Amino acid sequence: MFSKACPKGMRDILPEDVLIRERVLDTIKRMYRGYGYNQIEAPIIENIELLTGKEGGENEKLIFKILKRGEKLVDCKDNELCDLALRYDLTVPLSRYYANNMASLPTPFKAMQIGNVFRAERPQKGRYRQFVQCDIDIIGESSVLAEADLLSATVGTLTELGFKGFRLKLNDRRLLGLIAESCGFCESAVNDVCISLDKADKIGFDGVRAELLENGFDCAVVDEYLCCVNMLITSDSPLDACLKTLGERALAPINSLKFLLEFMSKQNLDCEVVYDPTLVRGMGYYTGTIFEVALSSVPYAVAGGGRYDNLLGKLIGKDVCACGFSIGFERIVNLIKEMNVDCGDRDKCALIVDANIGNAALIEVYKKAADIRAEGKVCSVIKRINNFGLMLNQLKQAGYGALYTVNIDGECKKFVEKS
Amino acid sequence: MFSKACPKGMRDILPEDVLIRERVLDTIKRMYRGYGYNQIEAPIIENIELLTGKEGGENEKLIFKILKRGEKLVDCKDNELCDLALRYDLTVPLSRYYANNMASLPTPFKAMQIGNVFRAERPQKGRYRQFVQCDIDIIGESSVLAEADLLSATVGTLTELGFKGFRLKLNDRRLLGLIAESCGFCESAVNDVCISLDKADKIGFDGVRAELLENGFDCAVVDEYLCCVNMLITSDSPLDACLKTLGERALAPINSLKFLLEFMSKQNLDCEVVYDPTLVRGMGYYTGTIFEVALSSVPYAVAGGGRYDNLLGKLIGKDVCACGFSIGFERIVNLIKEMNVDCGDRDKCALIVDANIGNAALIEVYKKAADIRAEGKVCSVIKRINNFGLMLNQLKQAGYGALYTVNIDGECKKFVEKS
Repeated sequence: MFSKACPKGMRDILPEDVLIRERVLDTIKRMYRGYGYNQIEAPIIENIELLTGKEGGENEKLIFKILKRGEKLVDCKDNELCDLALRYDLTVPLSRYYANNMASLPTPFKAMQIGNVFRAERPQKGRYRQFVQCDIDIIGESSVLAEADLLSATVGTLTELGFKGFRLKLNDRRLLGLIAESCGFCESAVNDVCISLDKADKIGFDGVRAELLENGFDCAVVDEYLCCVNMLITSDSPLDACLKTLGERALAPINSLKFLLEFMSKQNLDCEVVYDPTLVRGMGYYTGTIFEVALSSVPYAVAGGGRYDNLLGKLIGKDVCACGFSIGFERIVNLIKEMNVDCGDRDKCALIVDANIGNAALIEVYKKAADIRAEGKVCSVIKRINNFGLMLNQLKQAGYGALYTVNIDGECKKFVEKS
Repeated sequence: MFSKACPKGMRDILPEDVLIRERVLDTIKRMYRGYGYNQIEAPIIENIELLTGKEGGENEKLIFKILKRGEKLVDCKDNELCDLALRYDLTVPLSRYYANNMASLPTPFKAMQIGNVFRAERPQKGRYRQFVQCDIDIIGESSVLAEADLLSATVGTLTELGFKGFRLKLNDRRLLGLIAESCGFCESAVNDVCISLDKADKIGFDGVRAELLENGFDCAVVDEYLCCVNMLITSDSPLDACLKTLGERALAPINSLKFLLEFMSKQNLDCEVVYDPTLVRGMGYYTGTIFEVALSSVPYAVAGGGRYDNLLGKLIGKDVCACGFSIGFERIVNLIKEMNVDCGDRDKCALIVDANIGNAALIEVYKKAADIRAEGKVCSVIKRINNFGLMLNQLKQAGYGALYTVNIDGECKKFVEKS
């Protein structure tokens, strides 16, 4: 006998949960389509070189690799057992997709991608090794219109899904770099400094300080840096303070952020917008604006993204700007399950036929079922099992409100439970 | 620079094709849900032992295997490099899913599964290594009601998708066995005999005869067998002829087939139903009725399935009957593309804003866009690019019927092309 369980870290999704997921997906697709995004699909499998090109940061360590097949495997050297791998996100595949198909795609290109991604993470509650991502991206739009469009589409879609009380955090990778450098870190250290800063919400500023010192950075530099970040956090007008500290070279990112703050506050959405100088976002490929949507009701982000203007250049040979936003689909679904919303399934009717029903009668039952379906209702024909009580309970649990029993001659009678 | 191409045998799907696929999937889900099928989802990855259990026939040779990770890989012996694999169909995963979750599922269980499957086939035109399957299955229904329900749901769904002129072929694995044995083949040879018979439509009866002789079967037995099959094909009432040849032991499968022939001919569907004594279906797990839907307009099957009463027993420890039907989604989509149907996308409107538009004006543009979307229309805001002619062409090609230009002050004007 085989094992009945899923592979470690994977899961079977039960019918009631699939219904909720499908409803959420339908809303996301309808809304993003309404904003002019074009759904595309790339394969789940990519050539392994694409996925190990150092763009994915920590995620690259978590790649599922696929063994070569047939002759390829026989001929291969020890260190080249695999030629393919499962994608760990949708951004790197999107870049390859755009490079491969740019001649057939409009400029700028507004893309929507919904699909499974795979990461061999250490299994933990609520985290799975296969999960769905929902991304929108605008390729070829260098102005802040791209950020504005992505933000309003995403917050609009989350609103349509029933969420409210959004807290939108914005930052810019260029500001993160300028601030660190102005305090004495060298350019090559910025990335490591940001990785530590990113942990501030978990380990606090003291933790960040300890980690930076542990990594060998100069104590005076570290303290000046944390003092500066702290000043920005507590300032009443942090972007003005930022401009004052950094000067003219920070003008472009600051003006973008100022515009986005104003733009989003005027979108008629229940959305608080802030510049957050500690927002980092993990992926290595971001180059400009970065953003994250949180809810006032939960302590984690439900969507995040940013600008990545260099990633496509590695595939196309010349730089093409791009900006993207990803909804945390699994988190959204879990929150919606807690909201206990009605999945809006149609009227459901079951025709429970006698186990010994004759052929001619069964044919008539199916004609009746077709008539019921023509009214837009669900109609399931099933044979009565010995444990009728169990069957009734299961049908009620699955939302069947109208139950009919059909006897051996095909006579149909509404079932009314004795009280 | 990385390769821009997909892995061999894979493909990028362009926006216009994704729209068609989504429309087809929506119809399939809505219809099957209407018949009472419950959508479920199992992971794309399974434990490798499950997929190499000899149930998948030829497909098992085509499995994509996933390399062990981390310590598991370091510790493993040479012949155990892989612990996981990508599913090659939806039936084997369904069996594991049912075994794993049967306590939470109703009896009988009507399942719908839609998802990607993977086969490392030799790349050829129109065949891909990642493709979508759409399956419905009924688990725990031993009577012919299961077959009847699956057939009417599938032909009903294909009708809703716009197809007509169905040709439904039925057979039964038990009859295939009884006929072969009655002609002198031993029981253990039946499978090989069927594999050859399955090729009759490609290599003809002469080709089947040559292959059987080549495989070492007795010439007299082979000739009697082909003579018998030929008699059935040319008979006016082949099921009666079959009963006459095989006697009482063939009564059960013959009665099932007779019922299904009558049932389907009375379903008010444009459907010709025949018993086809040469129908085999490739998978090794079928045990009873097998069926296939073809269209009068194309030479290949668009859906197929059958009864597999033993597969679940290997996972559950006791036999649980099951019957399933699979729509050839990729074939269906290609046929629908040829039918040139309207994808029914909503009115599409584009607001093309001046590249130097001011911030305040842009905020107003987004309010206008929100108003247009509130009317149920698609509205895409994009910045004007230098090559305006190209932009116009791309928008028209993407189905944007209403184009507006927005000047630097936010004034919006309907764009009318000069003739």
